[in-house]
Amino acid sequence: MSNRLDEFEQYRTRMNDRIAQIDHLGIKRFFNLDSSAYHAGALDAKTKEMLGLVASLVLRCNDCVDYHILQCVDAMCSDEELYECFNIGLIVGGSIVIPHLRHAVESLDIARQHNVEA
Amino acid sequence: MSNRLDEFEQYRTRMNDRIAQIDHLGIKRFFNLDSSAYHAGALDAKTKEMLGLVASLVLRCNDCVDYHILQCVDAMCSDEELYECFNIGLIVGGSIVIPHLRHAVESLDIARQHNVEA
Amino acid sequence: MSNRLDEFEQYRTRMNDRIAQIDHLGIKRFFNLDSSAYHAGALDAKTKEMLGLVASLVLRCNDCVDYHILQCVDAMCSDEELYECFNIGLIVGGSIVIPHLRHAVESLDIARQHNVEA
Amino acid sequence: MSNRLDEFEQYRTRMNDRIAQIDHLGIKRFFNLDSSAYHAGALDAKTKEMLGLVASLVLRCNDCVDYHILQCVDAMCSDEELYECFNIGLIVGGSIVIPHLRHAVESLDIARQHNVEA
Amino acid sequence: MSNRLDEFEQYRTRMNDRIAQIDHLGIKRFFNLDSSAYHAGALDAKTKEMLGLVASLVLRCNDCVDYHILQCVDAMCSDEELYECFNIGLIVGGSIVIPHLRHAVESLDIARQHNVEA
Amino acid sequence: MSNRLDEFEQYRTRMNDRIAQIDHLGIKRFFNLDSSAYHAGALDAKTKEMLGLVASLVLRCNDCVDYHILQCVDAMCSDEELYECFNIGLIVGGSIVIPHLRHAVESLDIARQHNVEA
Repeated sequence: MSNRLDEFEQYRTRMNDRIAQIDHLGIKRFFNLDSSAYHAGALDAKTKEMLGLVASLVLRCNDCVDYHILQCVDAMCSDEELYECFNIGLIVGGSIVIPHLRHAVESLDIARQHNVEA
Repeated sequence: MSNRLDEFEQYRTRMNDRIAQIDHLGIKRFFNLDSSAYHAGALDAKTKEMLGLVASLVLRCNDCVDYHILQCVDAMCSDEELYECFNIGLIVGGSIVIPHLRHAVESLDIARQHNVEA
Repeated sequence: MSNRLDEFEQYRTRMNDRIAQIDHLGIKRFFNLDSSAYHAGALDAKTKEMLGLVASLVLRCNDCVDYHILQCVDAMCSDEELYECFNIGLIVGGSIVIPHLRHAVESLDIARQHNVEA
Repeated sequence: MSNRLDEFEQYRTRMNDRIAQIDHLGIKRFFNLDSSAYHAGALDAKTKEMLGLVASLVLRCNDCVDYHILQCVDAMCSDEELYECFNIGLIVGGSIVIPHLRHAVESLDIARQHNVEA
Repeated sequence: MSNRLDEFEQYRTRMNDRIAQIDHLGIKRFFNLDSSAYHAGALDAKTKEMLGLVASLVLRCNDCVDYHILQCVDAMCSDEELYECFNIGLIVGGSIVIPHLRHAVESLDIARQHNVEA
Repeated sequence: MSNRLDEFEQYRTRMNDRIAQIDHLGIKRFFNLDSSAYHAGALDAKTKEMLGLVASLVLRCNDCVDYHILQCVDAMCSDEELYECFNIGLIVGGSIVIPHLRHAVESLDIARQHNVEA
C-alpha cells in the first residue's frame, strides 16, 4: 500500500536520477560527498544518521527529516532513541520546530507500520 | 495544459492582487522596491535574476526559486548557466538545499517544456 | 464547510495528541512552556499573539503563521493591526517572506469568512 | 561614560551616513520604509518596537536586538514587558537564542544604568 | 592562563546568573529543560552532546559550538569523532558553515591544550 | 598598514592550514569543491563571485561577505555593481541584513583604500 514516505522516495529517486543526468561535475561530487559523510568511520552509521536527523529538524526541512528517519529505522534506532533526537531538535530549535516534530512523529509511525506490513 | 508552475503563477497573481487591495502603504512600497531591484542598472536584468535565484536557493524557498527560474528563462539564461547557479546555491547552502535543488531542476524542465509547447 | 484552516487544526490536534501519547517528559514540558508563554502576564494575550505571529513570519513557517492568525482573531485583533504585523514581518524578513505573506493574507480572509458563516 | 551600546550607536550612525552617501535609490528607499514601519499607526510605536525586538531575537541578530531594546526603553517598556518579549523569543527560537538572550539582558541593564546616570 | 574559552565560560556563568536573578518563570523553566535534554537517557550523554554540537554548527552559533565542544571533551569524545561531527555539520550546512568550522577547530585545539596544561 | 580585512585573511589562512592538517577526507574534498564552484565555466568568475556575495549577505555571514567582496574587487567589479548586489541582498533578506550591509560597505571602503595605498 502506498503512503507519503513511498511517494517521497519515488520522487527523490526520480529527481536524483535527473540531476545525475545533468552531469554537472560539482553537483555530482557534492552528492558523493554527502553520501560518504554518513558512512561508518570514527562514528558508526547509526550515530551519524541521528546527527543528520537533528540537523534536519533544527533547519526545519521535512524532506530531510523523512530521509534521515528512514535511514535511522534501517540503522536499528529504537523509538526511544529517536524521541530523544526529536527532543533535542525541539529544545535547540524552539517552537518553530513543532510543525516538523508533528511531521517527524507521523513519518516514524508510517515507517514502523510499513515494516510491520512488509 | 496546466502544470504546477502555471498554478503557482495564478495563485501568485491572485494573492498579489488581494494584497494590493488591502492598500497598506508600507507593503505596497515594499512590493515596488522589490520589483525595481531586478530592473537593469549597473548590472543587467539577467545577472540580477541569477542573484535572486541563488539567494532563493540558499534561503530554501521553493516559490521564490520558481519565480526566479521563470524570470531567468525569460532573460535567456541557458541551462548550463542555471546549473552553475544551482551548484553555487548547493555548495553555499549545503545538503539541506538538495530538496530545493530537486524542485528547481523539475521546475526548469517544466518551464522549458512549456516553452517548446507554446 | 471545510477549508484548509480547519484541516490544519484537525491535523494539529491529532498529531499533538499522538505526541502527548509518546509521553516524553522533555517534549511534554516544552509544549506546556510554549502554551504558557502566550498567557496574559506583563503583556496581554493579544500583544503576545502578535509577537508570535511576527516571529512566525520572519522564520517563514506557514503552520505557525496560521496558528497565530487564528489566535489573533480570537484575541480580537483588527485587520488593520494584523496588516501592521504583516508589514513588520515583511520589512524585517525581506522579500523571501512574500510567499508567506500571501499565505497569511489568504488565511486571514478564510478565518474572517469562517466567523461570518459561523 | 562610554559603553558598548554607545559604541554601537556611533558606528551605526557613521555607517548609515556612509550608506546614505552612496546614494543608491533602492537602498535609500528601503531605509525609509524600515523607519516608517515602526511609526505609530493601527498599532502604537511601543508595540511595534516589541515586535521588532522579538523578530530580532528569533533571527539572532545582536545589533538588531540592541537597536530595538534602546527603542523599547525610549517607548517606556517596563523590564517585565521586555522579559516577556525575551521569553517569547526564547520559546519560539529555542536554545540557540540563549547567547542572544544573554546579550539582550546585558544590553537592557546597560541601557537602564545609562538612563540613571544621564 | 586565560584564553577565549575561559572568557566565554566566565561571561556565560555571569549572565546565566543574572538571567536567573530576573526570576522569569518561563525563562527559568526553559533553562532547566535545556539542561535536562542532554542528560543520559535512551541516548548516552556523549551522543547527545554531539547532537547538540552538529545542531549548533548548522545553525551557525559560535557560542553554542564552544559550549558543546567543551561538553564533548568532558564526555571523552576523541578528535576523530569530533571531526566527523564537523564534517556532517559542514556537508549539511554548506560553505556558509566554514567560518564556524574554523572557530570550532580552534576551540577544540584550545580545549585540548588547556587539558594538557591543567 | 594592517586593517581588519588583513587580519581576517591571516586568520582565514592560518585556520584553513590547520584544517588541512587535520586531514579529514570529507572536509578536504568539500574545500576543493567550494573553490571549484567559483572557477569560470558557463558563468564567468566575476558573476560567480557576485552570486557568492549575495548568498553570503542573505545568510548574514560577515566573514563570507568579506571574502566575496575581496574576490569581487579582484574580479574587477565596480562599486556600482557591488551596490546593486548589496541592494538585492537587502531586499531579499530584509532589515535583518542591515548590520551586514554596514559591514559590507565598510569592508568595500577598506578594500578600495588598500588598493590605492598598495
